[in-house]
Amino acid sequence: MATLTVDKAPPALLSSLNGGERTVVRVGSVEIGAGDPVVIAGPCSVESYEQLSATAEAVKAAGARILRGGAYKPRTSPYDFQGLGLEALEILSQVREETGLPVVSEVLSTDDIELVAEHVDMLQVGARNMQNFALLRRLGQVRKPVLLKRNPAATVKEWLLAAEYVLAGGNGQVVLCERGIRSYDPELRNTLDLAGMALARQLSHLPVIADPSHGTGRRDLIPAMSRAALAAGADGLIIEVHPDPAKALSDGMQSLNFPAFSRLMETMQTVGRR
Amino acid sequence: MATLTVDKAPPALLSSLNGGERTVVRVGSVEIGAGDPVVIAGPCSVESYEQLSATAEAVKAAGARILRGGAYKPRTSPYDFQGLGLEALEILSQVREETGLPVVSEVLSTDDIELVAEHVDMLQVGARNMQNFALLRRLGQVRKPVLLKRNPAATVKEWLLAAEYVLAGGNGQVVLCERGIRSYDPELRNTLDLAGMALARQLSHLPVIADPSHGTGRRDLIPAMSRAALAAGADGLIIEVHPDPAKALSDGMQSLNFPAFSRLMETMQTVGRR
Amino acid sequence: MATLTVDKAPPALLSSLNGGERTVVRVGSVEIGAGDPVVIAGPCSVESYEQLSATAEAVKAAGARILRGGAYKPRTSPYDFQGLGLEALEILSQVREETGLPVVSEVLSTDDIELVAEHVDMLQVGARNMQNFALLRRLGQVRKPVLLKRNPAATVKEWLLAAEYVLAGGNGQVVLCERGIRSYDPELRNTLDLAGMALARQLSHLPVIADPSHGTGRRDLIPAMSRAALAAGADGLIIEVHPDPAKALSDGMQSLNFPAFSRLMETMQTVGRR
Amino acid sequence: MATLTVDKAPPALLSSLNGGERTVVRVGSVEIGAGDPVVIAGPCSVESYEQLSATAEAVKAAGARILRGGAYKPRTSPYDFQGLGLEALEILSQVREETGLPVVSEVLSTDDIELVAEHVDMLQVGARNMQNFALLRRLGQVRKPVLLKRNPAATVKEWLLAAEYVLAGGNGQVVLCERGIRSYDPELRNTLDLAGMALARQLSHLPVIADPSHGTGRRDLIPAMSRAALAAGADGLIIEVHPDPAKALSDGMQSLNFPAFSRLMETMQTVGRR
Repeated sequence: MATLTVDKAPPALLSSLNGGERTVVRVGSVEIGAGDPVVIAGPCSVESYEQLSATAEAVKAAGARILRGGAYKPRTSPYDFQGLGLEALEILSQVREETGLPVVSEVLSTDDIELVAEHVDMLQVGARNMQNFALLRRLGQVRKPVLLKRNPAATVKEWLLAAEYVLAGGNGQVVLCERGIRSYDPELRNTLDLAGMALARQLSHLPVIADPSHGTGRRDLIPAMSRAALAAGADGLIIEVHPDPAKALSDGMQSLNFPAFSRLMETMQTVGRR
Repeated sequence: MATLTVDKAPPALLSSLNGGERTVVRVGSVEIGAGDPVVIAGPCSVESYEQLSATAEAVKAAGARILRGGAYKPRTSPYDFQGLGLEALEILSQVREETGLPVVSEVLSTDDIELVAEHVDMLQVGARNMQNFALLRRLGQVRKPVLLKRNPAATVKEWLLAAEYVLAGGNGQVVLCERGIRSYDPELRNTLDLAGMALARQLSHLPVIADPSHGTGRRDLIPAMSRAALAAGADGLIIEVHPDPAKALSDGMQSLNFPAFSRLMETMQTVGRR
Repeated sequence: MATLTVDKAPPALLSSLNGGERTVVRVGSVEIGAGDPVVIAGPCSVESYEQLSATAEAVKAAGARILRGGAYKPRTSPYDFQGLGLEALEILSQVREETGLPVVSEVLSTDDIELVAEHVDMLQVGARNMQNFALLRRLGQVRKPVLLKRNPAATVKEWLLAAEYVLAGGNGQVVLCERGIRSYDPELRNTLDLAGMALARQLSHLPVIADPSHGTGRRDLIPAMSRAALAAGADGLIIEVHPDPAKALSDGMQSLNFPAFSRLMETMQTVGRR
Repeated sequence: MATLTVDKAPPALLSSLNGGERTVVRVGSVEIGAGDPVVIAGPCSVESYEQLSATAEAVKAAGARILRGGAYKPRTSPYDFQGLGLEALEILSQVREETGLPVVSEVLSTDDIELVAEHVDMLQVGARNMQNFALLRRLGQVRKPVLLKRNPAATVKEWLLAAEYVLAGGNGQVVLCERGIRSYDPELRNTLDLAGMALARQLSHLPVIADPSHGTGRRDLIPAMSRAALAAGADGLIIEVHPDPAKALSDGMQSLNFPAFSRLMETMQTVGRR
C-alpha cells in the first residue's frame, strides 16, 4: 500500500493495515471485501410496499445481494419529498424478511440512529454528512456496519479521516463509497472519481464500492461506469433501480428499470478484476 | 432582485422578499444588514481566558462589534485538537459580560444547541454542516440568530435552500456567510467567491457576510479581500484574530495579530459601498 | 511581495521585482499600473463601423480610456460567428483615429501577429491560448504591449509562468487579466477569482486587471464585481459594452448598454483603493 | 447514441454518425476504433537514440502497437527542458524504421506541422492547445491522423466541438484522448474522467482513448485506471514508459519502467469489454 501524507497525528487505525489484513464487512450474511464483488440495488426512496417488494424480487433475481432504499431523504429543498420515514423502515423490514436480502438505509441524524438500526442491516452516511462529526462519532458506538459516502468536494485524505472518526469510536465495520465529485460539466451530475476510489482502497484496509448512479446522474452511463469501477478494483457497487423510473419520486433520471438492471448484471460477468 | 431557477416548489420564504424589505438580523444589540457593515473578529478556537480576553479587548478597540471563538471545533482528523467545549463556552460568556461584545460560536450537533444557545448570542453552522438538515431544522425552532456558512462545493441555490430549512422552521434571523469554495490552486486554501456572495444577496432578503480568513487561507490576502467584499456589498466580515498566530492551536496561517487587525480596520474606512 | 514556490529554475524576470519597481505598461498614451485605474471597454466583437464608433464615443464620454473590440474571435464551435477579421481591424484603426482611444484586440495565431499589430495598440492573448507557447514566444519579440488572460483552469503560478514566456523573449510590457475560473454553479459563467488576482499582483511586478464580464457572465453582477476588483487593488478593468446587448453577435448576456456603463463608471468613483 | 445539447448550429459532422458507422483511424498499419484496443507507449520526451530505441523494443515486445515520444514539449516554465526538437524527430523516424512501430508526437504550432508530419504517423494536439483554433484549422488540411487531448477544464461538448474544427477542415481521422481534468486533491495530478470519456464516445463516431499517466500522475494508479478505461469502452490507451523513470527529464513520477509495463499489459488481457 502507498503512503498518505498527514499533517499531524497519523491515522492510526486506517494506516495500521489491520495487522496486514484487509477488512471484510459483514452485512447480514453478505461479505463485502472478501473477493467477490457485491452489488447493492434498489430504489432511491421507498415509496410503497409494492414498489419495494417488486424491486427487491427483481434485483435479487438478477444477482444483487443487498437491498437499498431511502426512508429519510436529504433533499436540497425543504419543499421536496423528504421520505416516508418510519413507514419506510417498516416496509424495509418486511421486504427483508420476505426476500432474505439484507438492507441498507441512510441515517440523517444522531436522533434516528437507534430507530434505523433496529430495522436495517447497514447504516448509510450520505455525502452531505461525510463530515458531520457528531453523527460519525455516534456511529462509532453502534454494532452495525456503516456505508460512508464521499463528499463531492472531499479529498481522499479527508474521506479516510472521516472514516477514522467511526473506527476511532470502536466500530471497524466501515465500507467507503465513491459517488462522484462536483462537476463543472452540465452534461454530468458529478464526476465519478475512480482513481480516487482506487487510491482510497490502496491507502486503507477498508472495502470500497462505487455508486455509478449518483456518480454520473445518467442512466446511459451506468453500465460503462459499473464495469470500469469493478475493473479498477471496487469491492462492490450500489445502483438505483426502480419499477418505473419516469415516475420515481426522486432521482428518476439515474435509475434503471428491471430489464436494464438485469442486462447490466449479465455484462458485468465478463469484467476481469485485478 | 434577480430570479432564481428552482426546479420544483418555489423557495417561498426567501423569494417573498420579506414583504419587500431586507432582513435585519439582531445579534445582542448589534444589527447586521442595517446598512453599516459589521465586523466579527476573534480567534479560531477559544484556548484560554487570557487569550480570548486579550483578543476581545483588542478587536473591540479596533472597531469590531461581535466576538467569535470556537468551543466545539469540526476537525478533519479525530486526532486534532477538538476545542475546549463547555469550558470555552464559559470563557465566552465571561468575556461577553466584561466587554459587552455579543459572541458567536459554532454548534456541531443538535445535542449541543441548547447548551451553546445559553452561552452565546448567535449560533454558527459550519461549512461542513451546511446540508446537515437535522441541525438546520432544529435551529428553525431556536430563538437565536444563525450564521450559515456556505459549503465549499455548494451552488448559490443550494446555499439559499439550506437557509430555507431554518426559515421554514420559523427562525427568520439568518445571516449567510461566504467562506470560499474548493480551489485547485495549492497557493490558496479556498477561492473566495464574491460574485456568489453578491448573487446570494441579490436573490434573497438575508444579510450576507464574507470570511476572508478561510476564504483565502493566507494572512497576506485578508486586507485586499476584506476591502473587496465590502465593495461588492457585503453586510459584514468575519475575521480570525489571535494574540500570537504562530502559536494558535488551529488556523494560525490565516489569523491576523492585533496590530495587523487594527491596520486592516483603518484601511477599510476608505471603501465606498454601493 | 510574497514568495512563490517554483519547482525548478526560478522565474527570474518576474521575481526580480524589476529592480524593485512595479512595471508600468504604456498603451498608446495611456499608462496601466501607474496608480490610477484604467477602464478598457467596448464590444465583444466588432460588428460594423456604426456599432464600434457609437460604442467608442459612449465609453469615452463615460471615462473609459482604452477601446476593446474583437476581430478574430475564438469560438467553441466552428459554426459560430468567427469575427470580421481584417475588416474589423480596419474599423478599429479608423475609430482609434477618430476618438483618440488606443485599442486592444485579440490575436489567435502567430500568423496574425503582424497584421493585428499594425492596426492596434495592444495584443490580447485569450484565456484558451494562455499556454499557447509558440504564440507567447513570438509576442516576446513584438514591440507592442500584451494583455494576457488567465486560463480558467490555470493556477496563479502557471499564469505568471506563461507571462514569463513573453518577458523571457524580450517584451516586458505585459498586463495580466483575471477573467474567471471554471465554475460548477450553473447560475454563473465563471468564478471571478479576485484573491488569485491579488496574489498575482503581489507575486509579480506586472499590472493586473479584472474582467467582470467574462468573470461572471451576468450583466447584473458587473457593478459589484468591478467595485470589488478595484478595492482588491486591480490596476484596471475590461468591460463589455454594446449599443444593444440583446442583438450582440456574441456575449450579449454579459454586455452593458451605454446608460448602464455610464452609471457603473460613476459608482466606481467612490471605491477607495489600497 | 445519446444527444448533445448544442446552443446554435449543430455539429454536423460529429452528430451525423458518419452514415451510421464508427470512424476507424489508421495510424500507419494500425487501426484505432476497429474493435481491438490499441496501446500507445513510450517516453514523455525523446532524450536520446538509446533511450527511445530501448523503450521501443521493450514496449513492442510487451504488446504496444504505436510509439509515443515528445520532440517539442509544452512546459509550464520557459526555463524547463523544452524537448530536443528536430533531433528528436530524426530519432523518432529512425526508431520507427527499425521497429516498424508507427509513431505519434506533439505539434505545438502551425509552423511545426509540416516538419513534424514528415517524421511521424500521427500528430498530437496537447491539452493546453485543445482550443488553439488556428492549429486545429490547419490540421484539418493535413493528411495525417490527429490525436486530440481534452483540456483539463473542458466540457465534453467543448472537446467534441474542438474536434469539429479538424473535421470541418476536411480531416476526419481524429482520435479523442481523455487525460484528466483539473483536480483539487493534492494526492492526484488530475482526475481521470472516464464517464466523460464514455460520454464522448457515445455522442460521436470518433475513437476515444485514455491517458492514465497524465490522468493520475501516479505510477501506482496506472494499472487500475488502464483496466477501468478499457472496461468503460476505451478504444485504446496511451501510457508513459521510460527505461529509468527516476532519471526522466520530464514526468518521471508517472512513468512505468519496462517490467512494470510488461506486467500491466498482461493484466489487461483479462478485462472483458462491452
